[in-house]
Amino acid sequence: MKINQFAIVPTTLADEKKKMQQIQFIRQADLQLSPHRLLRRLLQQSFPEVTSHEAADNKMANLLAADHLDALSLTQISDDIKPLHIDNLILQLLGFEAGRDFQINAPEKITSKVNLPEFNHEALTNDDLVHAWYQLLITHTTTGQTFLDQLASRGYYHRLKDLPKPLFFNGKAQPVFDTSKLIHEVVYVESSQDSDHDGLRDLLKAEITRPVESNQQPVPVLYTASPYNQGTNDADGDALTHNVNVPLTEKTATANTLSDSQPAPVRIPDPRVVNGHAKQADESFGNTFDYSLNDYFLARGFAVVYAAGIGTKESDGLRTTGDPAETTSTTAIIDWLNGKRTAFTNRTANVAIDATWSNRHVAMTGRSYLGTLATAAATTGVDGLKTIICEAGISSWYDYYRENGLVIAPGGFPGEDADVLAEETFSRQQQAGDYDRIKNKWQHQLTEIKDGQDRDTGNYNDFWNARNYRKNAKNIKADVMIVHGLNDWNVKPRNAEKLWRAIHDLPINHKIILHQGPHIYINNFRSLDFTDMVNLWLSHELYDLDNHAEKILPDVLIQDNTSAENWQAYPDWGDPANKTTQYHLTPNSLSTDTSSQETVQFNDQLNKPTFQLYAKDNNQWQHDLVKPSSPLKGHRQFFKAPAQTNELVMDGCPILHLDVSSDQSIGLISTELVDLGNFKRLKPLPTTLARQSMALGYHFRKEDLREYELAKKETSYQLISKAHMNLQNRNALTQVDPITPGQTYSIKLELQPTHYRLAAGHQLGLIVYATDFGMTVRGNQNITYTLSLANSWLELPHL
Amino acid sequence: MKINQFAIVPTTLADEKKKMQQIQFIRQADLQLSPHRLLRRLLQQSFPEVTSHEAADNKMANLLAADHLDALSLTQISDDIKPLHIDNLILQLLGFEAGRDFQINAPEKITSKVNLPEFNHEALTNDDLVHAWYQLLITHTTTGQTFLDQLASRGYYHRLKDLPKPLFFNGKAQPVFDTSKLIHEVVYVESSQDSDHDGLRDLLKAEITRPVESNQQPVPVLYTASPYNQGTNDADGDALTHNVNVPLTEKTATANTLSDSQPAPVRIPDPRVVNGHAKQADESFGNTFDYSLNDYFLARGFAVVYAAGIGTKESDGLRTTGDPAETTSTTAIIDWLNGKRTAFTNRTANVAIDATWSNRHVAMTGRSYLGTLATAAATTGVDGLKTIICEAGISSWYDYYRENGLVIAPGGFPGEDADVLAEETFSRQQQAGDYDRIKNKWQHQLTEIKDGQDRDTGNYNDFWNARNYRKNAKNIKADVMIVHGLNDWNVKPRNAEKLWRAIHDLPINHKIILHQGPHIYINNFRSLDFTDMVNLWLSHELYDLDNHAEKILPDVLIQDNTSAENWQAYPDWGDPANKTTQYHLTPNSLSTDTSSQETVQFNDQLNKPTFQLYAKDNNQWQHDLVKPSSPLKGHRQFFKAPAQTNELVMDGCPILHLDVSSDQSIGLISTELVDLGNFKRLKPLPTTLARQSMALGYHFRKEDLREYELAKKETSYQLISKAHMNLQNRNALTQVDPITPGQTYSIKLELQPTHYRLAAGHQLGLIVYATDFGMTVRGNQNITYTLSLANSWLELPHL
Repeated sequence: MKINQFAIVPTTLADEKKKMQQIQFIRQADLQLSPHRLLRRLLQQSFPEVTSHEAADNKMANLLAADHLDALSLTQISDDIKPLHIDNLILQLLGFEAGRDFQINAPEKITSKVNLPEFNHEALTNDDLVHAWYQLLITHTTTGQTFLDQLASRGYYHRLKDLPKPLFFNGKAQPVFDTSKLIHEVVYVESSQDSDHDGLRDLLKAEITRPVESNQQPVPVLYTASPYNQGTNDADGDALTHNVNVPLTEKTATANTLSDSQPAPVRIPDPRVVNGHAKQADESFGNTFDYSLNDYFLARGFAVVYAAGIGTKESDGLRTTGDPAETTSTTAIIDWLNGKRTAFTNRTANVAIDATWSNRHVAMTGRSYLGTLATAAATTGVDGLKTIICEAGISSWYDYYRENGLVIAPGGFPGEDADVLAEETFSRQQQAGDYDRIKNKWQHQLTEIKDGQDRDTGNYNDFWNARNYRKNAKNIKADVMIVHGLNDWNVKPRNAEKLWRAIHDLPINHKIILHQGPHIYINNFRSLDFTDMVNLWLSHELYDLDNHAEKILPDVLIQDNTSAENWQAYPDWGDPANKTTQYHLTPNSLSTDTSSQETVQFNDQLNKPTFQLYAKDNNQWQHDLVKPSSPLKGHRQFFKAPAQTNELVMDGCPILHLDVSSDQSIGLISTELVDLGNFKRLKPLPTTLARQSMALGYHFRKEDLREYELAKKETSYQLISKAHMNLQNRNALTQVDPITPGQTYSIKLELQPTHYRLAAGHQLGLIVYATDFGMTVRGNQNITYTLSLANSWLELPHL
Repeated sequence: MKINQFAIVPTTLADEKKKMQQIQFIRQADLQLSPHRLLRRLLQQSFPEVTSHEAADNKMANLLAADHLDALSLTQISDDIKPLHIDNLILQLLGFEAGRDFQINAPEKITSKVNLPEFNHEALTNDDLVHAWYQLLITHTTTGQTFLDQLASRGYYHRLKDLPKPLFFNGKAQPVFDTSKLIHEVVYVESSQDSDHDGLRDLLKAEITRPVESNQQPVPVLYTASPYNQGTNDADGDALTHNVNVPLTEKTATANTLSDSQPAPVRIPDPRVVNGHAKQADESFGNTFDYSLNDYFLARGFAVVYAAGIGTKESDGLRTTGDPAETTSTTAIIDWLNGKRTAFTNRTANVAIDATWSNRHVAMTGRSYLGTLATAAATTGVDGLKTIICEAGISSWYDYYRENGLVIAPGGFPGEDADVLAEETFSRQQQAGDYDRIKNKWQHQLTEIKDGQDRDTGNYNDFWNARNYRKNAKNIKADVMIVHGLNDWNVKPRNAEKLWRAIHDLPINHKIILHQGPHIYINNFRSLDFTDMVNLWLSHELYDLDNHAEKILPDVLIQDNTSAENWQAYPDWGDPANKTTQYHLTPNSLSTDTSSQETVQFNDQLNKPTFQLYAKDNNQWQHDLVKPSSPLKGHRQFFKAPAQTNELVMDGCPILHLDVSSDQSIGLISTELVDLGNFKRLKPLPTTLARQSMALGYHFRKEDLREYELAKKETSYQLISKAHMNLQNRNALTQVDPITPGQTYSIKLELQPTHYRLAAGHQLGLIVYATDFGMTVRGNQNITYTLSLANSWLELPHL
């Protein structure tokens, strides 16, 4: 078990003493006790669930300080207290088991990575003991939280009086707020647009959960814009899903797929006339689906606000799938939290209500569409938004639904598109009374989205350009923390990488964490103190705490793909200055020294049963694509490098240079970069180690503990990266050219960015093919592609 | 979507009115309003999250009563209120979506099974409206709870004052207790044994969670005895797991595997001298893993107690895996809850504490080992235990780890045995100080369990007889609710069926619910109101509420295996008077009319690679066993009946009569009964429909909503039942006879009980084989078995 902690603030002994007193773990007088009595005091404090001395003694007697010497006895004898004793006690208190995880006579030899204290004396002094306990408090237990967080969940803070609120320890906000008295409120924020053209400015529903203490002293806000959280129309979305078993068709040539037309100015109705002010909300709410990272902060002096935006249940407007109107509806909530916009207690009485409880410092959180809207909001430079934690967010919707002039589905969702997602999230539809009044407008809007997204061409047109947040990256004033999965084929890593590069030189703090998962949350992994990192970050960003978060947190943190529980800091990801290695494509091989003058071919058309099998079972297709001998032989070209003699750490975007011709006036090229060889690799999904074992507060909400494990069985390959291109877009994204059958074109295909450790013995593989059953249209057309290898090579960036 | 509700109490209109007033949903004066104003009142009450009239009006305006007529308008016009209006409103309030789940102009045609009210008038009267709303309140929404429970989770009860506590509605306890002020206490119950022989009676740790209201008025207790909940030693258990790749060996013949020796009387130390009485506990506790069904009852006026029993962390004693000492430690907690035993505030001060907050009515809950201990406790007839809800419990440990003279693993856990489980649950080991003192005794105890379980013979000896709770079934005084999965190959259905038959004629109430899952909980299924059923049952059992639960709940409730979301009541399960059909075994066939005089053979030895593959991958073995052509050909005999022309509903234990010989002096016979044919069947595990969508109270804990879905893909078979026998035990379970090689013996093999609908077109299959890679030892011995078909037949009980 490796516990990687990146959120520890280095602290002097003097500060350790001061902070231990501030949280009432020790009193000033305790420092005058004998070491044995001080140790007894520290141990007593480590069992906050007991109130009597006898009960505390019982607990101590169950800890072993040395062979046949329990902790209670240690406090009662006159022998010196030694580092070995304390190491043993610390490991047990952290949840490690003597005899299995470590040996009582040599605790320092524990193989797990643990933050054990360093001692200056063989006979420990009071200073040593205080230092040891401070380190213990900030160290992660075996269940994914600091010991102090665990103590808190066992009632430590709950039983204390007169604690300052907020309270910070080692730079991180502590769970001292009363989660049994949370306030739940609904308000309706008036935005500065009328996106459903009903003559009234859009009202946007916001659900607020905040500590009762915020009535006295304002608190910062974690704001999650989630178009899903008022319900989704899954069946209707499914029904709209596009058939992908359609042919690729020839596109009209054009020098520029973008027009230079500007959107017509829209008349915005006047704001509602405020009809009074309320101190209390009219509306509360019950059970909602919450992000457990937000819940964790509720206990620590932060409010949490969810808003679903235009076109969702009990809000006005229409869904747009990411256009500027949606961004405006997203930032409207921040304006209100920042005292710069009106909200009402309900939709009709025009009684205004202020966010008096907000300290006007807002962070946005959430994954996927939620993280997308955080990015969208940040690119407006809206005041009050101090930071975003963008997890698996889209930074340009073209990179979600399209690629290089092709319709490309998010992994796992063939046929999904902007209109499908709009329909899925249009939760106004779930209220028949409301829907009855808006239905016609909505059908019109859906048609507009369908026309705008233009599945026929896959072109980067005005519709998609309006949904590219990176255009406005320079406006970002908020500090940015990006979290993305290197195996996220839903929101592909390009979204993170291009945003990362776009903000890299801005005068803001920026951090990126890359994990080995697909499209998941990572706030409950045992091996990484992600939650602590976010706490350090938000205590700094939103409470203005001078905890050096910006320096302590690594700029780039990447989970290793070859071993479990390893996270490593790097100076950058995808640095343009990275070294590159060129691999020539030769028949069946990738070679760094020999090139080939040959041409090779493949045909894209499969027999009907095979086509139907793959259309139904995309996993089988993916499996067969990489299998040496499979029905896809002849329908792909497979180039393999020799097995690695040394490891290679790829970092950045591989680029495939290809000379290719199609025997038709249409054509598409797909490619996959794979790691080959029978090896044990990380499982594709994290394992739940213990259900509901992470407590987010004292008898408050809980979360499962998870971890990426190395699989017990070997696998034959792992996908590293991929790319797709319409050959008509070979010259530029915004330029469409005709294809002359048989004519060879040089294309440059940028694969999805990666960071991948190809260990010795593994083999790099490159597959060039056309139809991607999981992502492209599947025309099953009789097209033969010819690759001229002489001018075809793979350019691989690496460390 | 089918919502099956079995916990609805038929109610007269007068009672409906009375109860609606008791929960303050209507006032007496409301009954004098015009129907339109009454409807408005009922609608307002259906939105407990809002406090202003305007906000309530907004909500009403979003409900559609008829085409282009919203609910708010309906309350404002003078037209009659019609059944159609109310049906529409009810369906929307329940979460059904107009236009998708039902049509606004014909709501009554909804295809989902919904408890819609019946009306007596075309123009609805106040009585009709009150009746309609009463029915609405007790009907399940689309998210698996009654509308009233949903209202409660949205704050309905929270905002009311002067509610009686407890409060019952339609026979079920309501969530009116304050879950934000739960009390958490630890006590140490002194049992009447000294199972670790340290000269002191065992102290047993119990963790209590109870509503603060129990300080004023005692509440009943849900008690879950869970040996797991203080932690488990998984790695140590794994290390103890037995090698199953060992040969079957010849057993010494014996007329009776049981001795008639009685356990020697044990001197029990005197009770501790009580040193004072406390009103308050010394110790609290933090986050624990809780059963969400228990959580649900915390909001409804029940306390919840977890105890892990002898040999677990912070309790005395040693683990025994189900012997009478463990039962004694289980019932000790009940004695204390019932005022008949001493508990202490901690382990050393001898200060007693009483369960003054307990109304002395206890139910036991929990699944697997937890349900097992509920059964164990019930068979003592202990006072205060009013009922057990035994989910997937073991009723005799022989039926868990053994079968007919063979070592038979619980499905998925080859090599597990009583000693492994004892080690896994011996959580005293997790505290090094405690373990240091008890280690030697524990190693001795493990040796004793290992000797007692006797894997060499698999015999039903004194060890197993002591762990057969059914011997004492006649002592059961508590009412019994059994829940079991018909596809539970971990705790096999025999455990439920034999308990069911053993209690069938006792003067107690007994209910059984059989689902199509494996070893799972079922309290969060959308299609069944299981939680309501338990509420009705426990309100009756523990609050003495005269709600007729014993008559309203079906005695036997079984989930259908051929379609999703169907649950059906039956008078009995496995009634000995069921009809039976005899199938003769003929080469490759099962036949009801023709018999055969032939003999057929199979040999049990596989080539090494095949053996190793199956030993590693039990699923592959199971798959190949049923596959017509597989490496197992020649290693099994496969008998198939013609495809069913009509459906057949099997019910009870199939019995296989077989004339068989072995060519060695050892031999074992295994059999599987399977349903063959490519059909869509229920998925083996429930699907999570919505994460954390079931609220167990008001801003309290949550649970996922789940359901068994019909798989989208066809499968080729489904396992119905199976059995195993050591041929040396052919004459009786407790009798071991020698085998003469080549001699034919008539055996009678009782398969696991089932209830299985074999639909028309499906084909019954019977496989006879020897080594069961998932369950038996795997000696890979060269043994040839010969079946004489003339005297071999399958006896199939059915409805």
